[in-house]
Amino acid sequence: MPYFDTASAAPLHPVARQALQASLDEGWADPARLYREGRRARLLLDAAREAAAEAVGCRPDELVFTPSGTHAVHSGIAGVLAGRRRVGGHMVVSAVEHSSVLHAAEVHEAGGGTVARVPVDRMGAASAAGYASALTASTALACLQSANHEVGTVQPVAEVAEVCAAAGVPLLVDAAQSLGWGPVEGRWSVLAASAHKWGGPPGVGLLAVRKGVRFAPQGPADERESGRSPGFGNLPAVVAAAASLRAVRAEADAEAARLRVLVDRIRRRVARLVPDVEVVGDPVRRLPHLVTFSCLYVDGETLLHELDRAGYSVSSGSSCTSSTLTASHVLKAMGVLSEGNVRVSLPAGTTAAEVNGFLEVLPGVVAGVRATLGVPEEEPQAPVAESLEVDAVGLRCPQPVIELARAIRTVPVGGTVTVVSDDEVARLDIPAWCAMRGHTYLGESPRPPATAYTIRRNL
Amino acid sequence: MPYFDTASAAPLHPVARQALQASLDEGWADPARLYREGRRARLLLDAAREAAAEAVGCRPDELVFTPSGTHAVHSGIAGVLAGRRRVGGHMVVSAVEHSSVLHAAEVHEAGGGTVARVPVDRMGAASAAGYASALTASTALACLQSANHEVGTVQPVAEVAEVCAAAGVPLLVDAAQSLGWGPVEGRWSVLAASAHKWGGPPGVGLLAVRKGVRFAPQGPADERESGRSPGFGNLPAVVAAAASLRAVRAEADAEAARLRVLVDRIRRRVARLVPDVEVVGDPVRRLPHLVTFSCLYVDGETLLHELDRAGYSVSSGSSCTSSTLTASHVLKAMGVLSEGNVRVSLPAGTTAAEVNGFLEVLPGVVAGVRATLGVPEEEPQAPVAESLEVDAVGLRCPQPVIELARAIRTVPVGGTVTVVSDDEVARLDIPAWCAMRGHTYLGESPRPPATAYTIRRNL
Repeated sequence: MPYFDTASAAPLHPVARQALQASLDEGWADPARLYREGRRARLLLDAAREAAAEAVGCRPDELVFTPSGTHAVHSGIAGVLAGRRRVGGHMVVSAVEHSSVLHAAEVHEAGGGTVARVPVDRMGAASAAGYASALTASTALACLQSANHEVGTVQPVAEVAEVCAAAGVPLLVDAAQSLGWGPVEGRWSVLAASAHKWGGPPGVGLLAVRKGVRFAPQGPADERESGRSPGFGNLPAVVAAAASLRAVRAEADAEAARLRVLVDRIRRRVARLVPDVEVVGDPVRRLPHLVTFSCLYVDGETLLHELDRAGYSVSSGSSCTSSTLTASHVLKAMGVLSEGNVRVSLPAGTTAAEVNGFLEVLPGVVAGVRATLGVPEEEPQAPVAESLEVDAVGLRCPQPVIELARAIRTVPVGGTVTVVSDDEVARLDIPAWCAMRGHTYLGESPRPPATAYTIRRNL
Repeated sequence: MPYFDTASAAPLHPVARQALQASLDEGWADPARLYREGRRARLLLDAAREAAAEAVGCRPDELVFTPSGTHAVHSGIAGVLAGRRRVGGHMVVSAVEHSSVLHAAEVHEAGGGTVARVPVDRMGAASAAGYASALTASTALACLQSANHEVGTVQPVAEVAEVCAAAGVPLLVDAAQSLGWGPVEGRWSVLAASAHKWGGPPGVGLLAVRKGVRFAPQGPADERESGRSPGFGNLPAVVAAAASLRAVRAEADAEAARLRVLVDRIRRRVARLVPDVEVVGDPVRRLPHLVTFSCLYVDGETLLHELDRAGYSVSSGSSCTSSTLTASHVLKAMGVLSEGNVRVSLPAGTTAAEVNGFLEVLPGVVAGVRATLGVPEEEPQAPVAESLEVDAVGLRCPQPVIELARAIRTVPVGGTVTVVSDDEVARLDIPAWCAMRGHTYLGESPRPPATAYTIRRNL
């Protein structure tokens, strides 16, 4: 039963399991204690820190272990913002950061700080120019992920780091998605990562803060981990995290080459086998194992459910699969279709047969979901009016777009359709649909309590 | 090699190890996902929450898992203080809380809040009357540990909870040291605990917040664990924590009865076998497995080192064994001797033979340390002056007290000795020495950059 959501969580790497076993026996004591059990734990902790620092590319005394990647991000951001408070309260992030970064930015705003969100292109990539124009004299911190967690696009970290260094602004890199594949290049200042993304155990994050970065840990004082991560450490998991990072790195180049071929196949085949699909993210500058596509006229939750029934575990950025009823902020920032969204992230060891099996099943599953939703036929139809208004209030994604696709055939070329919808996702998906189908999106106007979106038929 | 520091960390319980193994296979996926691996993880998480809630004595939806007991305390305190901000910024803690509570209180003070520290008696116990007089109309939160982590004294939680309930103030109980032995009695509002204290794995804390308590989680938003504990959860460890809590509870009464006998033996024998020793903490209302004593004229670090060489791992609240050079705040609040302090906390399964072995070794180890420090002979000596001043500036614990013991014999009964010391611990240990030896402590006066402590010889 293939599991294709390794970007969410990866099964434990065999080396992580072995290291965890061994250090449950050797590393349960408090490494701060002076007796033999404590000294033994201290040796394990020191060795794990050295191994992790080597993989990150920093000094051991620059790196601490945290309870998760999210904690590493939160502590790293809070520490730099406080340490550089005198510089100012301005912070720069990309629009497609992980929610842990964006939520920390919201807390900063709520506390009176300001946040600039650097836009990305349609591939999901931020640019050095974007950061350059966002930096101000009062910028305390800039943040950029090494690669995007939803679409796999690799960010220009080294270039952005140069721009930040020139401005004297520290760059925090969220390396959660890429650290297992290799070190982050460029002159970053702070780095955060999460062990369970590379096959290490859950419960371990890494936070590296380069010497020279002004850093003031926030929250109650605690003498552990240089005062940067409170609470009794999870030493067995830390040891397993460090050991498995070293192990996955040893296999990374070969595995990346292999998975890159499989992902390229998915990118090509999905576009060919599934009608009305948009494969998103950079086809070249991307993570080796991850691909995302969106299917028109498909309800994401039903799609995931049917794929699960067929034996494939994948993820989605569609609004209809999240509890918040909002579409992925990443897809939104990219301006690409969010409905029927599927993220496939292949774990190490995924075989071509597994990928082929998925590609065999997918077109039928998508067709099945579309059939139950009553997706409009492609046959031409006689126009019924020059312009038409569709009341889609109360309908949820993907229904407003399905209504639009049905209505557009009933106006002549040059005619318009206005969709009135109170589904927030329509704002993203209606323009994306126009771009895919060659129609012109004319814009939106308020129609309280909903919004009216107007489209001109072009063909 | 007996390990007698289970109050710091306990080796993994066999049930915890089994559960951890099993859930590494079954529980690595994200429980928020809808596919089968996610659903399986969700089932494990739900079952662990139910088991833990049953052991705590709360509803499953009142309990969340955190990365450590320290995180549970920090989040619990911050959440209640923010949730009840309108009531006021006053907080009440006992003087002998764990550092995680006291450091959170310091952060609250730094942010403009006020904190009352309820004193304890010489046994280390706080009182309901003490809390009653500390509560004000603007008290947002009161905190009290279930039992003290350094001396084992059990606190009157149920009585204090009644006082708090009558005043409408929520009581947060730090149950880290006692939860493995049984549920916390009384009408507490918030409870925090730590799995590695009961033989669960590190990396798991519990935070229970009763329905009806106004609670506003602080820090960046995160949808996991009801928004009260951010970051990807450590599910295998959570499962192991819940399973081992159930297991240790099943053995708790029998094991408590057994260890209580062993600890009683240590309390009696240490007082008899070691001269100039003070056994501290309540002899009856105490944790079953923990005992602390302080040895006059002994350097705590050397003592721990020698006990370690003899095969016994114990802990100490002496200043000379901590990196901060301050004595334990608990011993300070109790007003008991801190020098030569030893905490013995027996893990489950400790045998009488192991305890006897320790008691055989201890007197010789203490005598050996005293011999190297040049502890004064007991022989009487002719007085050399009516009053005497001893310059102990630059000397560290236990040397100022040793100098005092040497000098007191050179003044007549009724004469005085003044010790000038810049060791902060002298303020605690000189009065404690007077109480132990039957002399009168007359008080201190500033002697910049040191302090002068004056003692009258009584016998």
